[in-house]
Amino acid sequence: MSLDGFVAGPDQSVENPLGVGGTQLHAWAFPLAVWRRPHGMRGGAVTASTPVVEEALANIGATIMGRNMFGGHPGPWDAEHPWNGWWGKEPPFHHPVFVLTHHARAPLELDGGTTFWFVTDGIESALEKARVASGGRDVALAGGANAAQQYLAAGLVDEMEINFVPILLGRGERLLEHLGDSPPRLELLRVVPAVGVTHLKYRVGPDPSS
Amino acid sequence: MSLDGFVAGPDQSVENPLGVGGTQLHAWAFPLAVWRRPHGMRGGAVTASTPVVEEALANIGATIMGRNMFGGHPGPWDAEHPWNGWWGKEPPFHHPVFVLTHHARAPLELDGGTTFWFVTDGIESALEKARVASGGRDVALAGGANAAQQYLAAGLVDEMEINFVPILLGRGERLLEHLGDSPPRLELLRVVPAVGVTHLKYRVGPDPSS
Repeated sequence: MSLDGFVAGPDQSVENPLGVGGTQLHAWAFPLAVWRRPHGMRGGAVTASTPVVEEALANIGATIMGRNMFGGHPGPWDAEHPWNGWWGKEPPFHHPVFVLTHHARAPLELDGGTTFWFVTDGIESALEKARVASGGRDVALAGGANAAQQYLAAGLVDEMEINFVPILLGRGERLLEHLGDSPPRLELLRVVPAVGVTHLKYRVGPDPSS
Repeated sequence: MSLDGFVAGPDQSVENPLGVGGTQLHAWAFPLAVWRRPHGMRGGAVTASTPVVEEALANIGATIMGRNMFGGHPGPWDAEHPWNGWWGKEPPFHHPVFVLTHHARAPLELDGGTTFWFVTDGIESALEKARVASGGRDVALAGGANAAQQYLAAGLVDEMEINFVPILLGRGERLLEHLGDSPPRLELLRVVPAVGVTHLKYRVGPDPSS
């Protein structure tokens, strides 16, 4: 997330999935060995971010993401040339991924253990399906902003890791808005200053009025 | 600043200057000896925040603030019962303070070395006056959000200290918006995790397109 609260730049598109300037939000991760390995690349750096990324990945059994993060053009799926995500034949998840969408679609099984399931009956249903699929491990909410806001506003988030990057984007997709009149209570669990990023981990409580 | 980017809560008023929930943004500071002393109180705690506050206050020769931060009802000053700020007879500044306003007013000299000067000819003029008055020391921009945005968008800020608090306000005054299409470039100078706050200090550069 940028200092001004954006998790993607403006004008996201198939050609520019993170929006204008959005790639800067992830620049801290690309040189890391711990990022390169699940993307099928060797080598890379070890920094203070390494244990943070290892911890975040260690116990994930399933991932949830919004349709916008899965990508492709909005609306119904193209039956002849369906969009299969940004991640190629072997996505870096290596576990079941549940995509929130208004448009039904058969599961998409790719290499390396990643199957995308398309969930059309809402965020609670996707969470329940992901919990079952995770086999008792953690369920990660990958994004984007809209999906995160829905889960936060519904009180369904336990923990939140903010990778806080010292840039101002000025415009884009803001993560923390539309949270309702009683946003969740936070507790800061730890701060890790690293190269090009500060990792802030929060416990997310119920909203204070409940 | 809250995790969702607010530096004051909603519905600011004379009775509730920081808006609903806004006092939580400063709760980390109130117990500190280094905060209590300039407010005329003895005792208090010493934490990792102490050197940060000491450093921030050490070399300030003048302060600039917006009319909303100085407070009182908007519009022309009440000639019979003029608003004299939130800070009582001896404000904690102890140096000249320049208030951005559309409404001319004679300087207000209070105890302990604080004189409020009311500047009606714009942010550059206020900065120039503050520079002269500072005698070569630093000029602090105290806030609020609107004044900070004007100085940031004009490229007139060198450094920025964000006291980042683990709360979500949901609504209020956002610090980092209206920054134009080419917001300033940042460099993170240091991170200090402390009790109830994370202090993030940035160098603010010219906008990347200039």
